[in-house]
Amino acid sequence: MTGASDVLTSFAINGILSVVLITLFSVFKNQPLNVRVYYSKWQLKGDKACPTKHIPTVSSNGIRRYLNLDAKSYIHVMDWIKECLKMPEAELIDHGGLDAAVFLRLISLGLQIFIPLTIFGFIVLVPLNVTDNQLAIDMATKTNFTYDALDTITISNIRLASDRLWAHLVAAYLYTAWVGWLLFKEYRSIAALRFSFLASQIARPDQFTILCRCIPEDPDESTAVHVDHFFRVNHPDHYLMNQVVYDANELAKMVKERAKLQNKVIYCEGLIDKKFSKARPTMKTGFWGLWGEQVDQLDYYSDKIVKLTEKINEERTRILSEETSVMPAAFISFDTRWGAAVCAQTVQSRDSSMWLTEWAPEPRDVYWANLPIPYHRLNSRKLGMRTLVVVLIIGFFFPISFVQGFANLASLERNVPFLTPIVQRGLLKSFIQGYLSGLILKVSLLVLPYILLIMTKFEGHVSYSRIEKSAAAKYFAFMVVNVFLGNVLVGTIFEQLKTFIESPTTIPQTFGNTVPMKATFFIAYTMVDGWTGCALMLIRLLPLLLFHFRSGLMVRTPRDLDRATPLGNLELNIALPHLGLYFLLGLVYACISPLILPFIVIYLGAAYVVHRNQIINCNEPKYESGAAYWPYMFGYIIVALLIKHITLIGLMTLKEAKSSTPFLLPLPICTIIFYFYCKNRFEHGFQFYALEEAMAKDTIERARNPNLDVRSFLENAYIHPSLRSVVAGNDEDDSDDGA
Amino acid sequence: MTGASDVLTSFAINGILSVVLITLFSVFKNQPLNVRVYYSKWQLKGDKACPTKHIPTVSSNGIRRYLNLDAKSYIHVMDWIKECLKMPEAELIDHGGLDAAVFLRLISLGLQIFIPLTIFGFIVLVPLNVTDNQLAIDMATKTNFTYDALDTITISNIRLASDRLWAHLVAAYLYTAWVGWLLFKEYRSIAALRFSFLASQIARPDQFTILCRCIPEDPDESTAVHVDHFFRVNHPDHYLMNQVVYDANELAKMVKERAKLQNKVIYCEGLIDKKFSKARPTMKTGFWGLWGEQVDQLDYYSDKIVKLTEKINEERTRILSEETSVMPAAFISFDTRWGAAVCAQTVQSRDSSMWLTEWAPEPRDVYWANLPIPYHRLNSRKLGMRTLVVVLIIGFFFPISFVQGFANLASLERNVPFLTPIVQRGLLKSFIQGYLSGLILKVSLLVLPYILLIMTKFEGHVSYSRIEKSAAAKYFAFMVVNVFLGNVLVGTIFEQLKTFIESPTTIPQTFGNTVPMKATFFIAYTMVDGWTGCALMLIRLLPLLLFHFRSGLMVRTPRDLDRATPLGNLELNIALPHLGLYFLLGLVYACISPLILPFIVIYLGAAYVVHRNQIINCNEPKYESGAAYWPYMFGYIIVALLIKHITLIGLMTLKEAKSSTPFLLPLPICTIIFYFYCKNRFEHGFQFYALEEAMAKDTIERARNPNLDVRSFLENAYIHPSLRSVVAGNDEDDSDDGA
Repeated sequence: MTGASDVLTSFAINGILSVVLITLFSVFKNQPLNVRVYYSKWQLKGDKACPTKHIPTVSSNGIRRYLNLDAKSYIHVMDWIKECLKMPEAELIDHGGLDAAVFLRLISLGLQIFIPLTIFGFIVLVPLNVTDNQLAIDMATKTNFTYDALDTITISNIRLASDRLWAHLVAAYLYTAWVGWLLFKEYRSIAALRFSFLASQIARPDQFTILCRCIPEDPDESTAVHVDHFFRVNHPDHYLMNQVVYDANELAKMVKERAKLQNKVIYCEGLIDKKFSKARPTMKTGFWGLWGEQVDQLDYYSDKIVKLTEKINEERTRILSEETSVMPAAFISFDTRWGAAVCAQTVQSRDSSMWLTEWAPEPRDVYWANLPIPYHRLNSRKLGMRTLVVVLIIGFFFPISFVQGFANLASLERNVPFLTPIVQRGLLKSFIQGYLSGLILKVSLLVLPYILLIMTKFEGHVSYSRIEKSAAAKYFAFMVVNVFLGNVLVGTIFEQLKTFIESPTTIPQTFGNTVPMKATFFIAYTMVDGWTGCALMLIRLLPLLLFHFRSGLMVRTPRDLDRATPLGNLELNIALPHLGLYFLLGLVYACISPLILPFIVIYLGAAYVVHRNQIINCNEPKYESGAAYWPYMFGYIIVALLIKHITLIGLMTLKEAKSSTPFLLPLPICTIIFYFYCKNRFEHGFQFYALEEAMAKDTIERARNPNLDVRSFLENAYIHPSLRSVVAGNDEDDSDDGA
Repeated sequence: MTGASDVLTSFAINGILSVVLITLFSVFKNQPLNVRVYYSKWQLKGDKACPTKHIPTVSSNGIRRYLNLDAKSYIHVMDWIKECLKMPEAELIDHGGLDAAVFLRLISLGLQIFIPLTIFGFIVLVPLNVTDNQLAIDMATKTNFTYDALDTITISNIRLASDRLWAHLVAAYLYTAWVGWLLFKEYRSIAALRFSFLASQIARPDQFTILCRCIPEDPDESTAVHVDHFFRVNHPDHYLMNQVVYDANELAKMVKERAKLQNKVIYCEGLIDKKFSKARPTMKTGFWGLWGEQVDQLDYYSDKIVKLTEKINEERTRILSEETSVMPAAFISFDTRWGAAVCAQTVQSRDSSMWLTEWAPEPRDVYWANLPIPYHRLNSRKLGMRTLVVVLIIGFFFPISFVQGFANLASLERNVPFLTPIVQRGLLKSFIQGYLSGLILKVSLLVLPYILLIMTKFEGHVSYSRIEKSAAAKYFAFMVVNVFLGNVLVGTIFEQLKTFIESPTTIPQTFGNTVPMKATFFIAYTMVDGWTGCALMLIRLLPLLLFHFRSGLMVRTPRDLDRATPLGNLELNIALPHLGLYFLLGLVYACISPLILPFIVIYLGAAYVVHRNQIINCNEPKYESGAAYWPYMFGYIIVALLIKHITLIGLMTLKEAKSSTPFLLPLPICTIIFYFYCKNRFEHGFQFYALEEAMAKDTIERARNPNLDVRSFLENAYIHPSLRSVVAGNDEDDSDDGA
């Protein structure tokens, strides 16, 4: 167990780090040099669009082009916080999309939940805990028992079977009711936001289009004709056109390859232009440029590009002409939203493995690489990936127990005796227990979301939005099982699991026993992961370096500059589970050890400002799902509540509060009923597009735009990006690879 | 534990009983007197329709009108078995509906499963079991251990850790594979049957109609107009008309009351006509006719009928004129099946508590009494009923343990010492253990399905077919938990449950320990419940008596005679769970104690003949669901398979077959995967009506009947039966109460 000194060490390190990083950011963003990193969204929209007064101007004389030498401007250096909080929500939705706006609402939901909980905890629970003396009794009666000053703040210090536990029980009810009420309100208002957002959207291809999969083969007709016949017969009134899906994965690879080569050419030209080297750069043709013939780089790459372009053109004609490259899937467009809604929601064929329809994702949201996967393989792929996730979760326990070793140096000493001299030093010990343990966990979790994203892509979802949603669910499972349970459970994980399967009724007691002991560890984790993590997010270190490297060497035209401008992304697959973890920690510890709450509140406040700044200035959404991820997040918070209830029931049993424990049993039951109530009442609107809405939007549009030509703007919307230039008739190369 | 002598006693009693009952039936049905009981379906269709040669003719001279004195006809007295097996399936579907035909297929599926299992069991497993000697060893080593000759046939007689257990393991795999293959084939062919049945149906109102619930109130319009506007806007192309639902439950009660009074009048008139009493019958007006004024029965009732008719007419006009009696539900009809299919499958409104649509049941299938229930109360009603079912299941353990007491007289003796002299007598003991124990269980289960049916009606389903399906699921739960588990588990049920919840891993071992001990009890149960039950079903004792009572006193016109003719019913809510129980017993004991299999095979064979006879001669289906219940039954059989696997895993663990037990683990996993595979592949067709099918049927009909007036035959289809006469314009009273 870590103690007060370790928490203080960690507080000092992370606090100083965060302040330094934020100051650095404030200075960096004041430099004209960095304007494309910290205001990237505005730069692409056009300078004029930016409402902020404090954006550094790019004047064109000498050093002032890069650095801001105006001393006055440094007075307002922290004004960005005020600036980014100014934009009203309606404008934010317009500017950054509904997904981003709802994500900010989630953070503020966290603040609304935890600020009252903190106040109540410190006014009511902490005094009750501190003035009792169970820990002192334990120390007197048990051997080898020590406790820390911080532990007296937790529920552990309440005496067995004490009447004071009623306060914690009442608090549990109050907290649950408060969270439930806020969740209900939030669900209702997010649903309303979503409806008004969908109703106010301009006409977009995905409103008129569905994706049809598992198209059966026809011996006499090509897929396109077969699809056309089928929908002409079965949706005679509204069917408009179809666009078959081609297997262009090979082509996409080639286009990607060519883009890489083009970058290399630009890089070489940059080297020559900027006179970094005297001669023209050369290279060897062999593996990694280690051996082989010596050639001129520029000529070599240009030559390769010419050859590749030829191959690409051949491949394109092959794909468009051969029937074998047509996949059994197609995008079907209708002339009204009503027709598309009907087709998306109905069953077309009596055979459940044919003519399956669903809403088409937005064109920019389509994950083209997965469309060619045969539908009947999706189930086995999903099953395989889920098994792999379970294996990964179990495998991840090893780094976790390693972290636990650091957090508990006493046991480490016992196992590795030669560490004793190091471990004995006070400050070093505090540093290791308080800071390093959190850091190692944080680093080992850094790679994980990217692994999960790749795994989820393999599952075969057809849109980025779904991939991110599914990856988020997996990552949240990791958060709960590995970060929370992994640190909470003592002893070997596998032993614990075996006990749990053999006698599930012991779970609450184990939780109740170990959760309070880990409070200080999670405080340290909140500071490392939350505070420093937030500040690092703000400063955008990687995009900053990358941009300067690129702009130094590879930028010659304004188009190059636009290309080098690093746009950010919400990355919901990481952001949602993270937020979920803090909800979990906050709710579980709210009754047990309220000390963690102020740290979480500070984190949430910082996260709100940082994310708002990123959304306004740097992020460009990859897709717009209309807050379709909210029901998932709602589920995560419910899971957090249930874990809180189980822990508390276990704790009360251990505290021998026989009279009050039974009163806790209604809590999980009510939570589950509440979950289903909300799900029944609201989730509907996140899954289906009601015919009434579709009809209303169609009618309004017909009144406003009687001459709207739906066909023309649907024509090339759903063609694979690598094929678009050919089909559209212009020969400009689109280097977007769609993968 | 019951032994060989008890099984023989039971065999003798039930065998003799069954033979007697079947002979009685064969004689009874030969009498012209009973022709309306045993050929009721043909009588209502018209005598000419009956293809059977052996139907007794009703000649009109003297005693021959009632009794068959033709000695020759008694030679062919058993020919009904041959007769009823003759009718081919296609004709049977036409004659008795698809539901009935598929039910017969289920019984024959049972025969296909269990006949090979019996043969394999007796050739391979029984010799292996009999030639081993574990029980003899146990008797030598343990005190107080006795065993019976029958027990040597079971797996209990195999020595611990013997290599012979591999045979049982292989058998388990073979059996599972065989059952799986048959189930798959059956699912496929039932799905095909259903599709061709639906495609060949004539135009019926329910194909064009959907039921819309939760219609929101409108301040300016009546419900009918509001509905009309909504669907005219949102389904402009195919919407035809609507029929709002009235709350006519009060009216239905009055109509029912009047029908009762009319019956009483007919009964009195019958008494006077047939000269049973000299004077006109009188009665007292008070409670149950015990006190009050003495009046003439006939006048009294006629007077009451006149008054009631007035009230009924008033109520009818009130219902049709007042807006308050209109419920927020309506039947919406479309001019094509395609339009109805679209509306049934799509979401109409963004609010999940408004404009909910589903397919309308057939008019005869509608359970009118439940339509007025507000939709938002359905969930709480369901929750309440499910809780009640759980309570009932637990409460039902008491009669079960009482039965167990009889089946285990030794323990009864210990508790109730004064029974000793009775218990000591050999034959009586055999009678009690072998026959009475099964009988008591059977009787205590007789009332249950009717209780469950009432409970399910309270849940608020809108059609008889759904009520029966849901009641069947509840009854099957009883069968599994009370009949199977209740008899298998030893000790107090509640203790067992507690152990199971606290350590679920012990479940298989408990099963493995106790299941083999109960084999003989279930053999006795099969004979009582199956054999005698079947024979009783055949003879239709209650309808027989009731018909003769009625025809003696209350029949004067041919219409009265038709009314008195007792039509049977499949009663799927009882028949399906029953069949499910025998599947469960057969599969569980197939590897453990093959002795039960021949008894089950005999039962299934008898049930096939009996049900086929009833379906052809006596049953008139209440509704036609197109075998929609099959996916449920499929689920029951999968549950049976899983219980079999768990029991076997437990048994193998107890037998210390360490090398072979792990090989059993894939079985339950494969079974579950198989279940989901079949569900994915076929269930679809039982839930949705595909647009392709609907469009095809519409097109064919348009070609055949270009002038079909859909509106005319939908006009009055969905009006409450008690209101139909008024709305349709004729004043004939329909005494159908719809409840």
